[in-house]
Amino acid sequence: MSNMENPPDLVSSAGNGSRCQLHSPTAMPAAGAFLWNRRMMIQANCRGFAVARFMQPEPASYARGPNIEATTFMQPEQPYYAHHPGRFLYIKDEQSGALFSAPHEPVRAAPDSFCFTAAPEEITWEVQKHGLRASMGLSLPVDEVVELWQCEIANTSAETRVVSVYPYFPVGYMSWMNQSAEYRADLGGIVCSSVTPYQKVEDYFKNRDFKDKTFFLHETPTDAWETCQPVFEGEGGLHNPDAVQKPLLGCGDARYQMPAAVLQYRLQLQPGERRTLRFLFGPARDEGEILALRERYLSADGFAAAADGYRRYLEQGRGCLHIDTPDRELNHFVNHWLPRQVFYHGDVNRLTTDPQTRNYLQDHMGMAYIRPQTARAAFLHALAQQKPDGAMPDGILLDAKAELKYINQVPHTDHCVWLPVCLDAYLDESGDYALLDEPVPGQGGRSVFECVSRAVEHLAVARDERGLSYINQGDWCDPMNMAGYRGKGVSGWLSLAAAYGLKLWAHICVQRNEDALAERYLSTAEEINRAINRHLWDGDWFARGITDEGVAFGVRDDREGRIYLNPQSWALLSGAADAGQRARMLRAVEQQLETPFGPVMLAPAYTAMREDVGRLTQKHPGSAENGSVYNHAAIFYIHSLYGVGEGDKAWGLLRKMIPGPDPEDLLRRGQLPVFVPNYYRGAWHQYPEHAGRSSQLFNTGTAAWVYRCMLEQLFGLKGERLGLRIAPQLPSHWQRARVERHFRGAVFEVSFIRAADVEKLRVELDGVPLREPLIEAVEAGRRYRLCVSLPMIA
Amino acid sequence: MSNMENPPDLVSSAGNGSRCQLHSPTAMPAAGAFLWNRRMMIQANCRGFAVARFMQPEPASYARGPNIEATTFMQPEQPYYAHHPGRFLYIKDEQSGALFSAPHEPVRAAPDSFCFTAAPEEITWEVQKHGLRASMGLSLPVDEVVELWQCEIANTSAETRVVSVYPYFPVGYMSWMNQSAEYRADLGGIVCSSVTPYQKVEDYFKNRDFKDKTFFLHETPTDAWETCQPVFEGEGGLHNPDAVQKPLLGCGDARYQMPAAVLQYRLQLQPGERRTLRFLFGPARDEGEILALRERYLSADGFAAAADGYRRYLEQGRGCLHIDTPDRELNHFVNHWLPRQVFYHGDVNRLTTDPQTRNYLQDHMGMAYIRPQTARAAFLHALAQQKPDGAMPDGILLDAKAELKYINQVPHTDHCVWLPVCLDAYLDESGDYALLDEPVPGQGGRSVFECVSRAVEHLAVARDERGLSYINQGDWCDPMNMAGYRGKGVSGWLSLAAAYGLKLWAHICVQRNEDALAERYLSTAEEINRAINRHLWDGDWFARGITDEGVAFGVRDDREGRIYLNPQSWALLSGAADAGQRARMLRAVEQQLETPFGPVMLAPAYTAMREDVGRLTQKHPGSAENGSVYNHAAIFYIHSLYGVGEGDKAWGLLRKMIPGPDPEDLLRRGQLPVFVPNYYRGAWHQYPEHAGRSSQLFNTGTAAWVYRCMLEQLFGLKGERLGLRIAPQLPSHWQRARVERHFRGAVFEVSFIRAADVEKLRVELDGVPLREPLIEAVEAGRRYRLCVSLPMIA
Repeated sequence: MSNMENPPDLVSSAGNGSRCQLHSPTAMPAAGAFLWNRRMMIQANCRGFAVARFMQPEPASYARGPNIEATTFMQPEQPYYAHHPGRFLYIKDEQSGALFSAPHEPVRAAPDSFCFTAAPEEITWEVQKHGLRASMGLSLPVDEVVELWQCEIANTSAETRVVSVYPYFPVGYMSWMNQSAEYRADLGGIVCSSVTPYQKVEDYFKNRDFKDKTFFLHETPTDAWETCQPVFEGEGGLHNPDAVQKPLLGCGDARYQMPAAVLQYRLQLQPGERRTLRFLFGPARDEGEILALRERYLSADGFAAAADGYRRYLEQGRGCLHIDTPDRELNHFVNHWLPRQVFYHGDVNRLTTDPQTRNYLQDHMGMAYIRPQTARAAFLHALAQQKPDGAMPDGILLDAKAELKYINQVPHTDHCVWLPVCLDAYLDESGDYALLDEPVPGQGGRSVFECVSRAVEHLAVARDERGLSYINQGDWCDPMNMAGYRGKGVSGWLSLAAAYGLKLWAHICVQRNEDALAERYLSTAEEINRAINRHLWDGDWFARGITDEGVAFGVRDDREGRIYLNPQSWALLSGAADAGQRARMLRAVEQQLETPFGPVMLAPAYTAMREDVGRLTQKHPGSAENGSVYNHAAIFYIHSLYGVGEGDKAWGLLRKMIPGPDPEDLLRRGQLPVFVPNYYRGAWHQYPEHAGRSSQLFNTGTAAWVYRCMLEQLFGLKGERLGLRIAPQLPSHWQRARVERHFRGAVFEVSFIRAADVEKLRVELDGVPLREPLIEAVEAGRRYRLCVSLPMIA
Repeated sequence: MSNMENPPDLVSSAGNGSRCQLHSPTAMPAAGAFLWNRRMMIQANCRGFAVARFMQPEPASYARGPNIEATTFMQPEQPYYAHHPGRFLYIKDEQSGALFSAPHEPVRAAPDSFCFTAAPEEITWEVQKHGLRASMGLSLPVDEVVELWQCEIANTSAETRVVSVYPYFPVGYMSWMNQSAEYRADLGGIVCSSVTPYQKVEDYFKNRDFKDKTFFLHETPTDAWETCQPVFEGEGGLHNPDAVQKPLLGCGDARYQMPAAVLQYRLQLQPGERRTLRFLFGPARDEGEILALRERYLSADGFAAAADGYRRYLEQGRGCLHIDTPDRELNHFVNHWLPRQVFYHGDVNRLTTDPQTRNYLQDHMGMAYIRPQTARAAFLHALAQQKPDGAMPDGILLDAKAELKYINQVPHTDHCVWLPVCLDAYLDESGDYALLDEPVPGQGGRSVFECVSRAVEHLAVARDERGLSYINQGDWCDPMNMAGYRGKGVSGWLSLAAAYGLKLWAHICVQRNEDALAERYLSTAEEINRAINRHLWDGDWFARGITDEGVAFGVRDDREGRIYLNPQSWALLSGAADAGQRARMLRAVEQQLETPFGPVMLAPAYTAMREDVGRLTQKHPGSAENGSVYNHAAIFYIHSLYGVGEGDKAWGLLRKMIPGPDPEDLLRRGQLPVFVPNYYRGAWHQYPEHAGRSSQLFNTGTAAWVYRCMLEQLFGLKGERLGLRIAPQLPSHWQRARVERHFRGAVFEVSFIRAADVEKLRVELDGVPLREPLIEAVEAGRRYRLCVSLPMIA
């Protein structure tokens, strides 16, 4: 699969950047990639470990992963070794007895060569050792919960070889109620069965249709099998299982023992010969489902059809921007990976049934650039759940049986603010102002415009006597749950965001000739900005909030959590900061928050609980909301920097959001540049050796904003009511760039050139200079050629 | 520690049976032992794995164990390898590089000799390899949560040796919120810190005082350490960690990484020289607690004082019976282990805060024989929670903050029945009839007698029009939750138990001259027995119940769950069965339920859900309530067999409850004879190769009943109102036995002799024949010498 002429770099790319390759299984051991379809997702790392989730309708697993011990009653016959989930091949040379494994786990033999490849539609591994080449490839169909595995074993030596190949798919501890496994000749594979544990009779009816079986099916008949993990591993253990030491696996059942799926193929391979093996792995309710999946997929044709279908599916998420800049890795990321991540969020809603309202709205802000009709439907769906007082619920229920769970049972006060913010972006991109007059289902005939206005008014009202927004048990920052839980504390950030939201919505009111309303919202926004300046300006930056006890926090006197990023970003957006304040804030952020991996969300990270701030202060210093480079906050700041024309500063931080390209940075992050993670470890001054490490979480509201910033600010190809405005802020060291931008059905081919004779932005459309950098009345189907000339910057 | 002259058996004993030794780390890999104190328990197996729980106030862990994946949101930077909890020493020969570990995990090197020893007050391991002997010993203090480890490394070779010894105590995945570890020179050890994950603000206040730190303290200064599990293990993995390959551990911190406690001692040992190392391992809230534990325990004197204290504690649980029979292993079990298990249940209530009512009452029935004042207080405590209608709640709350959790949120109908059953035993043993007149706190001045009478009357009333007892969502059998959940189904077993309970209570009424009451209860009991015979007699046995739809189950027409054990046992107790029925039932049980490992609870085990019976039918066939040798049910049957004079049959089944003594049986059970487990795997006909395997669960209502059967039925030294009645049912092949029985402050030395010239039971007290085998007016402090002569049995 890899085609290497020179010794490879640590990370390389192929397919014009659509394949990202990692050539060491040990240098970045957590680096991986993810695939998803409409019913499942799987994150697999370079060593062969994998976490998969599917919906039934809540997220469920068919091979068990990292976990925290549940303090249940004591469990009978307990397994003392809770295993990893993974997808492995053991390869044994039957002549020499030498053993290695693909991808790298579990044997961990040093490979002669190794290549892990992330591609948008598949994940592959290739390892060479002992004159053999083993490869594994994983893909998914679009609409069913099943992993398609294509494995190949090749003899790269000059001798005839006899090898045994053992696909080993651990299933893990399924259930203390019932777990078993057996080989089913009639189904052509191993079926592991279980009953999801429960105690209450009502749960029986909820669980009755669960896919409680895990199957592993083979295309090619197998020589032997094992289904019982402790029997397979024995004393030899995972790295050198007892069963692999024997000529043939024991063909045993698991009866209330930990199940596993292991097959054995004894192969004789001539020099150069290779053998392909295909497998299916996944959950099912019953044998009928297993058989149907087998018939549909388990063949070369079935795999090919599934791959075609999946490519067509991803096409829907290819996005509206294709770039060619001096930054090759940026091109790869923006052309192949970033829109894919945005599409993932918006198409499957992160595989939840009750996405947090703020996530749901921002994810669909992202979809405005990918597939606007999906965003439109989502906004209507969300507004249909607006409460009578104009507030938005903490999560949006996606189906009739869904419930608000986990964090969505904790009241947060920010959800309304995302309606004007995200709708504004949607309207600018789509030009679909008709949405505003659409009636919202279940809201008594109210239109979208009226519902959002009510949300905006709710924000205006939910303020204290100082004019600041209550925080209750959290705002955007979920674990900031104790600043205002007694009903008095306020959020500086939310106050700023409310002012910004009111201004955005006022702007939309103006366009609808609702001038009185617009004026009211604008005046409230200014009132909020004044209140913020009165109560939260700390001399060099804005405070994060004021606690129930009236104590401002995120201020210079705080030893920890002295400065937060979000209030500064949103003060730039809301207009609360004047030019003098702005300069001070930017300096403070630069001095106190910026790190080689991006700006941290707050500093110094808290090292002990602060009871008047909340749970975030208990998180590990530098992780997540406690002072990591939390990319969602970082992109707000970048967005706001572009907003005030700080293009070079914004670019510098934006580029830091993507791992690499230099190997040292990649090693530090431990992540491939195939998604923006939720965070990179912060606390740069406190724990420098850990800073920069990726969270490896690809669920994040960041992606939509990064795409937006790229489109509308970096390349400056931004929609507005009348058309497309051109206002790029390319990094000053870029001399040229070309992009293709899809917009309202038209295609814009844009070339940017920085030239010595240019004094200010100049745009030519099909060779004709424009008086204003705005393309009005965009014609769907038309191809526009723009030449954008930019001045040189010293 | 072991002192072997000949090659050892698989299992041997020392200390007159007070130490049980296992000489292979691989033959019975799950075999282990448990220690507890008033705040914690630890179950450690022969290979070095351990599960520990402590109360804060709900059960918590400080080193993480077997678990089922919790489907949380995705966790950042997740560890892909969820490790076992264990307590290990790696021993590396610095000259040869050879590596082995004690107890056996994780290196799994084949030992030259191995000995795992379970003693009532400590658990020890000893392993010899490469001319070195490593031993580890674990003990607990009485009243604090801390493990005391004494390790010894000895040079048994003729050469001077240089070795590195690495105690490795994995802590596991503590928390996604915050986990870290560092070496603390000031505390003399490693401290791992975490925050128990939560999201709701009210949980912060619940969790605030949790012992969220895990410490590992050394007495002897260490040469190096490591606190980060992935760094320690590296590519080498658990069986051969990277860090052990280097001269010195890296002395690193864990910062939001999986913590572990590893130390290194480089030792030079002359031939015959040995070195002792002491460690403390446990949870703490803060450094103050850690320091206090260090000061109190971490020295030779501290260990010795703790051991003394613990021995004194166990003395309270030594029980009232010491036996000397032809069955040596039985002697060991009854003299050392069985009362210990009973004491464990009753003294710490299985380390729960809301024990199931039936467990709580039966555990304290056991305490009647061990420490009657504890049983007395428990009965009063339970009755204080009786409901206004006479029903008992599903669990007994032990402290003010406790809540009914898990299975105690499912309504069961049997709890009242255990009051007459357990009080009857208590009164017979203690003679404490004054308890009956004691007022019950919080019950409006009602006495114990009145409260229990109300419970008994509740049983009498909670019956349907047929006169049978409703089952609702379960009776004694928790997961029989769907036979009557719609309000109509009835329990055959509970009807029989109600009849038996009414009879027992009527007997107590008579003794209080409450003849009218007695008559009423007796007549209700007979009415129930008649109803049972009318509706549930199936020709050869009694059915288990009748579903909501009116279908009798546990009947000959059932393909699965055809016959249940409990209705037969309790029909013998309640008197529902006449002699003809009895013979039929015993034959049916023998043919359909008995196995080499005891009688299964039902047969055939269910292989698929039966929706009109419930959750038990979904458990794995042969496990737990679905047809295992569920020892609680088995001992009811044994008790009932003794009750009808089937002594030899009862003995045969009773002996099967204890693993061994022959090695084949021990291997099959996989458990040492140091406790009665909750169950042995059943489904003997369905899955013969798995049958007999121990659940390894030592929490079980069985223990109290086994002790009672031994005392009152096998040796026939049973209390009654007036004194001690002698009615032994020794196995017919025993020619003699001697026992010492403590009873109401007196000591009875009893020798049993079977002699040819004896026609019926003959008892001599201090050489004087008794007219009736009853010692009346027992004098506390007196030593009675009884000679009991028994006829020979053909």
